[in-house]
Order: sequence, then structure tokens, then C-alpha cells
Amino acid sequence: MEALKLKIVADADHAVVWQNDRLYLLDQRLLPEQERYVELQSCSETTAAIRSMVVRGAPAIGITAAYAVVLAARTGFSRSPAEWRRLMQPDVAALGMSRPTAVNLRWAIERMQCVAGNLPDGDDPEAALLAAAIQIHQEDVEANRRIGAIGAGLIRKQTSVITHCNAGALATGGYGTALGVIRSAFSEGLIDLVYADETRPWFQGSRLTAWELSRDGIPVRIMTEGAAARRMSQGGIGWVIVGSDRIAANGDVVNKIGTYNLAVVARYHGVRVMVAAPTSTIDTSVSGGTDIPIEMRDPEEVLSCGERRIGAPGVDAWNPVFDVTPAALVDVIVTERGAVHRPDAKKIADLMKI
Amino acid sequence: MEALKLKIVADADHAVVWQNDRLYLLDQRLLPEQERYVELQSCSETTAAIRSMVVRGAPAIGITAAYAVVLAARTGFSRSPAEWRRLMQPDVAALGMSRPTAVNLRWAIERMQCVAGNLPDGDDPEAALLAAAIQIHQEDVEANRRIGAIGAGLIRKQTSVITHCNAGALATGGYGTALGVIRSAFSEGLIDLVYADETRPWFQGSRLTAWELSRDGIPVRIMTEGAAARRMSQGGIGWVIVGSDRIAANGDVVNKIGTYNLAVVARYHGVRVMVAAPTSTIDTSVSGGTDIPIEMRDPEEVLSCGERRIGAPGVDAWNPVFDVTPAALVDVIVTERGAVHRPDAKKIADLMKI
Repeated sequence: MEALKLKIVADADHAVVWQNDRLYLLDQRLLPEQERYVELQSCSETTAAIRSMVVRGAPAIGITAAYAVVLAARTGFSRSPAEWRRLMQPDVAALGMSRPTAVNLRWAIERMQCVAGNLPDGDDPEAALLAAAIQIHQEDVEANRRIGAIGAGLIRKQTSVITHCNAGALATGGYGTALGVIRSAFSEGLIDLVYADETRPWFQGSRLTAWELSRDGIPVRIMTEGAAARRMSQGGIGWVIVGSDRIAANGDVVNKIGTYNLAVVARYHGVRVMVAAPTSTIDTSVSGGTDIPIEMRDPEEVLSCGERRIGAPGVDAWNPVFDVTPAALVDVIVTERGAVHRPDAKKIADLMKI
Repeated sequence: MEALKLKIVADADHAVVWQNDRLYLLDQRLLPEQERYVELQSCSETTAAIRSMVVRGAPAIGITAAYAVVLAARTGFSRSPAEWRRLMQPDVAALGMSRPTAVNLRWAIERMQCVAGNLPDGDDPEAALLAAAIQIHQEDVEANRRIGAIGAGLIRKQTSVITHCNAGALATGGYGTALGVIRSAFSEGLIDLVYADETRPWFQGSRLTAWELSRDGIPVRIMTEGAAARRMSQGGIGWVIVGSDRIAANGDVVNKIGTYNLAVVARYHGVRVMVAAPTSTIDTSVSGGTDIPIEMRDPEEVLSCGERRIGAPGVDAWNPVFDVTPAALVDVIVTERGAVHRPDAKKIADLMKI
């Protein structure tokens, strides 16, 4: 995994870039201090990059995985033109297990496997697979634009909003889900200020959301997650707008740890909660959020901050990466197919039939 | 302000130490990595130490201020034995404004001023003022012991608890308020595990609470503040136990930012909220929490972490240090005079008459 400054990419809003037959990821661990791309030369390198959070955000992980399947097929084909499909399976299986919670990863791999399965034996599969990956990427951007327009349409009058983690261009193919809604609503004069929860322990809010929004000239202020209730109690917050890593069949929303807190606090203060996510995030195979595996990560992420040790010696940390916000606390789920108000199993099922 | 390792103090649970006519503060900014005391030679040095959070926690700030008044009188008396009372006033006034929210600071200064006012002119006031400061200190430790016993008595069966910030020995004269309850309850077998909210932006939970409790052999686990709702939803959390910086006449509780979030989330999950604080924290001169000034601190506390820059360039942070938890979300306030269940103005007034 080679680190490089990808000069050819002028717009760092592209978290995932396929260019000149190569896959590049913007290393989000280094933002906002450095904008640096790494080149991924194989599927297994990409798996490692996803696991170590070079790239993060459910849709961006899905898109990355699609391109990683292209790399896996390329490697397989170079070893044996007749056996590439079989040869790539171990790498693709490991890719699928790189992160357990976001369903877009699995969804993208299944879609790519389906394309791979229909290709003729012996021919180089790269062009067809790449076309499929690019289509997944482009569809995501288009979905985000639609989500943005639909979500903005739900905001009736100018307000400030709170967002959590980063569900922006960096987390997707481009434009963003929650930040797509915010971009659209801001451009229509419906949002005057965005509060970005700093989002411990990875600080995606401080590092990524604030970076993205300020580059677009959208007023953004960082706050600790603990400040949400106080901020809401002072008025002027109309919406909490967040993304999702997986939505269950009943409308329960899995998203970055702290989303559930924020949704409880929002309901208490009469602030509405909007979840913006493409339908590729909806997993109708799980009936409720409690059935979705929640990734636990290294306690060190909580116990250290950069070079600084912050946890008392010998003390452990509990570090779930996601939480489950019950559907009852969600006012609306906005997808590219439309908005689901007060989501439940029936409404989600109807949406997925469209 | 000279930094030194105070070897004579074996027990670092003393955040504030008066020894050999000198005032020492354990520099809590350096914990848990270093246990280092600084000597404060004057009231103005002590004011600076309070402002920069060498010492923090409402009762500990009050005790520190009491000793600082001794230093102010010493300086004044050395300049003019007849005029010490007048000479010390500017320093004491600045001391009183070092931090705006905790009422114990003002309370302790007023009590010391009262003692000073009754001393004969011309005599060295140090012994009498020191006796008063030591009494404030000792009373606080005794109050904490009583709070611990009363609070522990409210926990009916073994449970895990969540605490926020540090309301321990480090925040008080010794033993602690919230952590006093936890110490007492643990010793009675009523608490099996303490979750310490890391408490952004100063990490008092990770640095101080985890340090204190682990030194006492009390099982403690750190978590991000955003994890509280998820943890509560999994069951096994009977209580949230926190301290307070000021309690209004109606029972509204001012405490470290994030407490209000935690209380809302606790109520949603049927987890009870206990606020442990000495009556010196109760300010009957303010009718409700919204009348209490909330300190705003430097956005840099949120935007940086040690040497590491985490906030996107050019983006501001909103950094209120405290929030107001409405009395309606507090199940019980535990003081050294007794417990006030479902606090309101009448019950608080009755308590203060005892």
C-alpha cells in the first residue's frame, strides 16, 4: 500500500478513485492535516485498508469493495485465465469480512459476484467487472443527489441542524447522504448552521465533516457529543440528520456509536431525526436492529489520542463502533426511492418493492 | 508556580494539600501519566491554577479557594499588619471570578471573608483563617463520607453504574461525592462495575475517574459518551451517579457538559439518576438552572488533543463546560443532610432548613 499525493485528482471529495486502471483511496485517517491518496494494488491490500479505516462510511466501503473485486479478478486472471473466478474467491471472502456491520459491503460484493458469474470462461473479465463497479459508484452518487433533494424538501423553514460522524462525500461515492441533504438544503437557504458532533473516538465529525462542509462554504461548528442536549434546549435546532451503516427490515437504524444517544435526546427536545441512506443500506434479511452484528474495535482507539495516553493505566475501554437507533425514534428515512415517515416493517417493505 | 513531586504526601488522593504552611495542588492536567504537585505561593497564583484547571471539581475548588484566602491574608499582613483585610480584597475578588459556574468557590470565599471580618485588627490573621480553611476541608471530607453512606443505601441490589466526569477524591477534599457513593456501594457489594464516560474535551473520566477507581481496586471500564444509550439498552445499568457544580433552588443540576444528555438517555431507559453533592453546592439564590452562568471555554480544548490537531482548519467549536439537567430528570439528590427524592423547590428549601 503505497502512500502518494494523487496530483491528478483535483477534487479531494473523491474518497474512492479508479484512474488509469488503478484504485486509489484518500487516506481519511490523515485528514484534515494531510490529503494523501494510497494506491491499492490488490484485493487483499484493499481489505486491509478497509479494516484500518483508510476508507470508511458504508457506501464508500461498498464502492471500494466493488473495485477490489476487479483487482481480485485481475490477480486471478493473471495466474490462470481459466480459473480466475475460483482463484479470487478467498480474497473476496476476506474482503467481505473486513468490517461486519455495514451491509453495503456485502451488497456490493454480491452484485459483483453476480456479474462475474455471468461472464464467459477464459475471457479477461476486467472490463466487464470494472463497468459494473463504475456503475455501482455512479449509482451511489446519483442516489445521493436524489436523497439530497428529497431530504431538503422535508425541511420547511430555515434552521440549524446537528449531524453525527461523517455521512458526506467522503463516506460515499460523492456528495454524501446526510451531508447530501445538508448540501441541498443549504443551497436552498434552508440551513443556516451545521453542528458537527466531534464523534469519538475517531473524530470523524471534527476531522471529516467539518473539513468537507467548510470547503463547500457551509457554516459548520464542532461540538462534543455531550453538548447536544444543551444545544437543543437553547432552541433553533430543527433536525438531526445522520447517515446509516445498515437499516433493518423494521426501520431500526444502525449508525456510528452515539447516534442512538442523539436520537433519544432529539426526541426529548422535539427535534426531528432524519436518516439519509441509499436503499443499498437497507437489509431486509434482518428483521430488527438487534440482529445486526455490531463491530467492536480495539479499546486503544478510546484510550489514546494521537501520541497521547489518556486512559488510566490498566483500565480497559468498551468500544462498540455502532449502535442501534430504534425505528420509533426515527422521524423519517430518506432514500433515493423516496422518504419513509415513521418507518416500520410494512413501509420499508413497500419501499423496497418500488 | 513551582512544579514538584511532593514526596511527603503518600496518598495522591489528596488533590489539595496544606502542609508546612504551604499550599500544594496535585496537577490534574498531568494525570494519569504524572503525579506531580505544584506549590502555590500566593492567592493570585492559586487563581491562575484554578483557571487553568490544575485543580477542578466544585468542592476541591472551594477548598482551594479557602486556602488561597489564607495566602492572600498572609501577603496582605506582610505588607501592612493594619491593612491586610483591605489589601487582600483585589486578589480575593479575582479568585472569586476564576471560574464562574461552581458555587462552592463563592461559598468558601464568603465563609472565609466572614471569619476575616471578625478578626481583631493588627493581629496576624493566618492561624485563625487557616483553622477556618482546614475546617471547610474537613467538613467536605465528612460530608462526602455521609453522602457515600446515604447514596449507597439507595442502591437496592447489585448493579453496574455509569458516572460522568470526575466527582471523586480528586474533585473534593477527599473520598468524593459521586465516587464516594460508588466507593461506599462497592464496599457493600452493591456495585460490580463502573462505566466511566471519558468526558470530552478534558477526558476527566478516562484520566481521573478511571485512575482513582482502579487505584482503589474498583472495577472500571471507560467508554465514549456516545456509547451510553447502547450500554443502557443492553441492561444491567441500575444507576447513573454524578456530582454537581451547582444546584438551583428548584433542584436543577448544573454539572459537566454531557450530564444532561446522560440524564435524558437514562430516563428513556428507566435508569435512575443520582446526583451526589454537599449542600455547599446548593445555591438557593438562583431559582432555576437557566439563571446559572455556564462557563464557555476556549474552542481549542475541543479542536486539539495533546499535540494533535483534530478540528478542520478554520472551523470553530462550541465549548460550554457545563449543562443544566432539569430537576424533572433527577431521581434523587444526595447531600450530607439527607436524600431529596424527585427534587423540587419545596423539598430543596426543606433540606436547607435542616
